[in-house]
Amino acid sequence: MRRRAQEEGRQVDAPPLIALLTDFGTQDYYVGAMKGVILSINRRASIVDLSHEVHPQDVMTAYFLLQNSYKHFPAGTIFVAVVDPGVGSPRHILCVETECHLFLAPDNGTLGFLERDARRIFRVTNRRLMLGSISATFHGRDIFAPVAAHLSLGLDLERLGPRTRTMERLSARPIEASSEGHLLGQVVTIDRFGNLVTDIRGDRVDGASEVRVGRARIQGVSRTYADGKKGAALAYVGSAGTLEIAVAHGSAAKKLKIARGETVQVIRKS
Amino acid sequence: MRRRAQEEGRQVDAPPLIALLTDFGTQDYYVGAMKGVILSINRRASIVDLSHEVHPQDVMTAYFLLQNSYKHFPAGTIFVAVVDPGVGSPRHILCVETECHLFLAPDNGTLGFLERDARRIFRVTNRRLMLGSISATFHGRDIFAPVAAHLSLGLDLERLGPRTRTMERLSARPIEASSEGHLLGQVVTIDRFGNLVTDIRGDRVDGASEVRVGRARIQGVSRTYADGKKGAALAYVGSAGTLEIAVAHGSAAKKLKIARGETVQVIRKS
Amino acid sequence: MRRRAQEEGRQVDAPPLIALLTDFGTQDYYVGAMKGVILSINRRASIVDLSHEVHPQDVMTAYFLLQNSYKHFPAGTIFVAVVDPGVGSPRHILCVETECHLFLAPDNGTLGFLERDARRIFRVTNRRLMLGSISATFHGRDIFAPVAAHLSLGLDLERLGPRTRTMERLSARPIEASSEGHLLGQVVTIDRFGNLVTDIRGDRVDGASEVRVGRARIQGVSRTYADGKKGAALAYVGSAGTLEIAVAHGSAAKKLKIARGETVQVIRKS
Repeated sequence: MRRRAQEEGRQVDAPPLIALLTDFGTQDYYVGAMKGVILSINRRASIVDLSHEVHPQDVMTAYFLLQNSYKHFPAGTIFVAVVDPGVGSPRHILCVETECHLFLAPDNGTLGFLERDARRIFRVTNRRLMLGSISATFHGRDIFAPVAAHLSLGLDLERLGPRTRTMERLSARPIEASSEGHLLGQVVTIDRFGNLVTDIRGDRVDGASEVRVGRARIQGVSRTYADGKKGAALAYVGSAGTLEIAVAHGSAAKKLKIARGETVQVIRKS
Repeated sequence: MRRRAQEEGRQVDAPPLIALLTDFGTQDYYVGAMKGVILSINRRASIVDLSHEVHPQDVMTAYFLLQNSYKHFPAGTIFVAVVDPGVGSPRHILCVETECHLFLAPDNGTLGFLERDARRIFRVTNRRLMLGSISATFHGRDIFAPVAAHLSLGLDLERLGPRTRTMERLSARPIEASSEGHLLGQVVTIDRFGNLVTDIRGDRVDGASEVRVGRARIQGVSRTYADGKKGAALAYVGSAGTLEIAVAHGSAAKKLKIARGETVQVIRKS
Repeated sequence: MRRRAQEEGRQVDAPPLIALLTDFGTQDYYVGAMKGVILSINRRASIVDLSHEVHPQDVMTAYFLLQNSYKHFPAGTIFVAVVDPGVGSPRHILCVETECHLFLAPDNGTLGFLERDARRIFRVTNRRLMLGSISATFHGRDIFAPVAAHLSLGLDLERLGPRTRTMERLSARPIEASSEGHLLGQVVTIDRFGNLVTDIRGDRVDGASEVRVGRARIQGVSRTYADGKKGAALAYVGSAGTLEIAVAHGSAAKKLKIARGETVQVIRKS
């Protein structure tokens, strides 16, 4: 990342980058309004959509998507993640600074993966950085968008609000409990292809003899889809670095009838 | 808006902004072709998607989305709204100029909300601003995109075609008729969260004792979702400035079985 | 196109354009990660989404979408098409150069329509242009994105890898076979509106007396939707330049119960 930051330093003319992640969908005016607000404050901001298709109020998926994409973005990118079941309640809004990036999100666990990398954490309270009139239901437009735009203009973070040291965490199920040396995890997300993405780290499945999910018993861990027979389930380490289960040229979720949260077991060679 | 226009004036190096609203979806090549045409004419244009998920030929929703988002965009933004059931028929294409923005759309009511704010209205007839070959079914690519691109290059509006003073309106149901002092409105759109957005202005629901929609009877008007019990319906003034009905952590549309067009009644305290 | 290339030449300050076409959808982090990688290498790249809604592994649709949109993009545009059922297998990755554009895609037929226009074809093998660690399942992020970014920085194509002269083709059904002078084609795609897009070229349907698809018998070829009665099927030459069948203000696919691949017959006047 340090190398990237230096490269970035040479590209001083590049417009600041703001990456958006929400559960707003693309059928309403919500995302459009956020972009309009950002561009009204910083006409040179460059906006990238991470996703707006997070299932409504699904903080866990927002966490997962952001965790798996942010490292690929250039230094200086400002991430705005608005999956916010608590909008209008007294929940806080956080800005987290890491070595290379800035993150804005409600304090609801979305940014929990940054716990170790956070250099400074701020509660965003400065009304001057927000729209003049703040609705009780659409802080994406009224708070997140204008604050992100001001950050993209180089705002001193100390002006956001008070420093804090704590963030909400997602209360995840105890992960990777093991019995008899086996690994236990769960399906944390199902992607568009119907692939089952688990929370079992790829570097822990070396020497696995069998992967079990639902009624499926998959022998060994493959390298990629192409190793599977058409229609057969296979396990492999996916692009997020964790164990995944797929059906070559088909949907594992449909074929195996698996939903998110399902337990996955990795049996090691004895 | 005046203040914004001045700020904008200082950002003379910012590329011109074109915001797109269509019912083309994102699975076909239609939106891509429009962007290609725009960028072929003005390589520096900056394109923002408002939405392409308007239900096919649903002019009312295009009206609603544009009305609720345009004010948030910077001065100088060019809005292109192509929900065009009459494509290929002799319907006109309009360019409407307001104090801060330009709008291009078929003359089918999409821009009806600008009736008071329109400074000049033009019928777009100048063939030189369009593609050389014009299909009968895809004016988004062949007319709207190139005309928008020329506008973004600073085209004199008088070159678009003849001035006109009239626009089509949407023939909306008479809104806010009242009996016994109560307000009557309707559900004009249902958003991704299943919230029911009505056409009853928020400043008129002060002192409401009950909101009725379908079989639901909701006591009073809340401030935000967080005021509701999980699974219970609540009414509040939404981010569009009108009365909305939601179910906290759920979909009001599904829970209450309400479709667009349903009547909503606001009972005032007596 | 030559004229466009010259215009382009004058806009030397415009950032390089990269157009993305994938089957990744927009609910996962896949597209976001690709954009992050591109912008990390070339912070000034301008990225346009053609579509990410190609049905998983549907190479035929990727071919169709790209074929019908690329000519509308400015000279110098780099197209990246990742519909890649063979990811992780030894399939090649190609870069095809035409007079005005560059194309990156797996060698699986996606780029087959360029066969005549290709000036140079390269196999992309240079590991230095890819991410340091290459997953077996996500070459969009690990190979296509960084290679596209390097191309946008002006990379000499000879550095991609060895030249080649061959590309995979899609094994399409023999098209436009005719019996008794009639034309036979098929429905190659169904768009968001439910319009049936065929592979029968528009310049061949002059003088058609009837179009047959499923149980529908459509008299003559219309100019546009507006020529049809509400709810009735009509045939016309669509914006892709081929014969289409639509139902005015409705979905032909639903009304006529037609799926992709269905045979379409054009009866000529005798």
